[in-house]
Amino acid sequence: MTQSVIAAADVGGTTVKLAFVTVEGDIIDKWEINTNQAEKGRYIMAETADALLHRAAQLDLDIEAAGVGAPGFIDVERGYIYEAVNVGWKDYPLADELSALLQVPVRTDNDANLAAAGEKWKGAGDGADNMLAVTLGTGVGGGIISDGRIVHGVSGMAGEIGHITAVRDDGFLCNCGKTGCLETVSSATGIARLGSEAAKRRESDHLHQILQHHGAVTAKDVLEGAAAGDEGALRVLRTSLDHLGFALANLCNSLNPSTIVLGGGVSKAGDFLITELRPFFDAYAIPKIAEDTHMRIAALGNDAGVLGAAWIAKDLASVKET
Amino acid sequence: MTQSVIAAADVGGTTVKLAFVTVEGDIIDKWEINTNQAEKGRYIMAETADALLHRAAQLDLDIEAAGVGAPGFIDVERGYIYEAVNVGWKDYPLADELSALLQVPVRTDNDANLAAAGEKWKGAGDGADNMLAVTLGTGVGGGIISDGRIVHGVSGMAGEIGHITAVRDDGFLCNCGKTGCLETVSSATGIARLGSEAAKRRESDHLHQILQHHGAVTAKDVLEGAAAGDEGALRVLRTSLDHLGFALANLCNSLNPSTIVLGGGVSKAGDFLITELRPFFDAYAIPKIAEDTHMRIAALGNDAGVLGAAWIAKDLASVKET
Repeated sequence: MTQSVIAAADVGGTTVKLAFVTVEGDIIDKWEINTNQAEKGRYIMAETADALLHRAAQLDLDIEAAGVGAPGFIDVERGYIYEAVNVGWKDYPLADELSALLQVPVRTDNDANLAAAGEKWKGAGDGADNMLAVTLGTGVGGGIISDGRIVHGVSGMAGEIGHITAVRDDGFLCNCGKTGCLETVSSATGIARLGSEAAKRRESDHLHQILQHHGAVTAKDVLEGAAAGDEGALRVLRTSLDHLGFALANLCNSLNPSTIVLGGGVSKAGDFLITELRPFFDAYAIPKIAEDTHMRIAALGNDAGVLGAAWIAKDLASVKET
Repeated sequence: MTQSVIAAADVGGTTVKLAFVTVEGDIIDKWEINTNQAEKGRYIMAETADALLHRAAQLDLDIEAAGVGAPGFIDVERGYIYEAVNVGWKDYPLADELSALLQVPVRTDNDANLAAAGEKWKGAGDGADNMLAVTLGTGVGGGIISDGRIVHGVSGMAGEIGHITAVRDDGFLCNCGKTGCLETVSSATGIARLGSEAAKRRESDHLHQILQHHGAVTAKDVLEGAAAGDEGALRVLRTSLDHLGFALANLCNSLNPSTIVLGGGVSKAGDFLITELRPFFDAYAIPKIAEDTHMRIAALGNDAGVLGAAWIAKDLASVKET
């Protein structure tokens, strides 16, 4: 008996995460292949399709549709990549390529939006139709779900939460070209920087010792120090979370989501992160908005992207079993 | 020959604005009646329906559907008013009431969202599917259009742009219960307050004289003084617009609209307002977002609400002529 599935691919700079997912959102199988960056990524889709077709034959699965995510600027309507720097693609017809190789309809979106959609569908969003997903990693990424749909904006840049101006005066210069972006203070990198500065100024003995022994302070050091009760580390963390609470509350004041899902490396701090973030968020949120908004730690880890990819493609799949 | 139309009503605390609108968005007729606030507004819909039916009979129009807006918290799905303070309604089934009276299907939304939808459809939004509308009046109101749809959020509070925290430290107390809201500095009331303070501190001779002669400074005084080249008044205006640019840029950094439509009393300053606002907006926006975002002055005035009301109802109307 052949089972119908959606093929899902989450293309990153190092690996392509692959999965077969049912229309109900159950992962039948998942694995990853290396991202072949040769010749501006021109072989990636061929290798992706080969891997999917080979495995589908082994497992006796019938691929009905596919969803694929990539980091970068995407024209979602056309499934067209303007640029995915980490992967090598530029002006690349991603959906058409994969569709021709798999002979099924294909949808695309950027990886941050798909991670948000995955968490909405099968993760901490728990089906929420109005949701923010925030990824606190090397940078700060995000995805916005409004009325059950991913918000893209006029040129696909919606959800770039990391570039909200959080530090209005004398903020750090960001890669995006302006200063004071949220990700300069609330990403893992931003927290590490604030921690290093505090260590240099000896505002935390704990962090100062780490700096002396290891030559650098990481976000993990700050979070662990804060959780263990080091006052200097806690002060650093709270400076960062004050900015994050400010930016998120202002988004919620305008979008009124039911749920904020926090993911990425920093979110490994778990409930401690939410406990520390919440008072800042509440101070900047309209009282009714503060009441409405739940905060949760992301639940899907690396599976969020492929589940989101399956979610955008699932209405292309006709459910059939033979 | 009977023409099919959509009946549109924009309920305010003083008047109910009424119109007959074609599915193409042409206003066939418009007029207003007084808002009857007696007994918590219980007669308003009966009087609205009477007025619409009477005029429709006179003009030989066939009402196919209706849209109605009101200020306050609305469950848009059910057409149910939680509370419309200025009108008197509380827990009021607005859509059902009007539908029973007119015997046609009815849709509802709040007045700020409908003004946004009207400007999108027939005004300065020029059909934009991703748009912010901002009303700079007594308060600061707003409506967000994303992917061609009004953004409501989980409890209908989306678009409350006026309560974005703009002044992070030592801001003024707002009616909403928190401090530093955008509307404490960028509404007509907020600009007047900033102007009065500057006048008292004699930071503007122009405003100081107005204060002495009239006992108060208005937003109009500040705008006119600034446009006429009074440096103190210009400084006041720029303080206000710095906050507005900050709040709007951060929204655009997350939502990537093509267009911001500025309406309300303050927008009567026209292009001067945009010229002064733009540099602040650009400083806080991601460079590509600054490029993407056009600013326009609202074009529809008081008609925005009824046109938005017709817009939400138009797919309920079957186009027919007899």
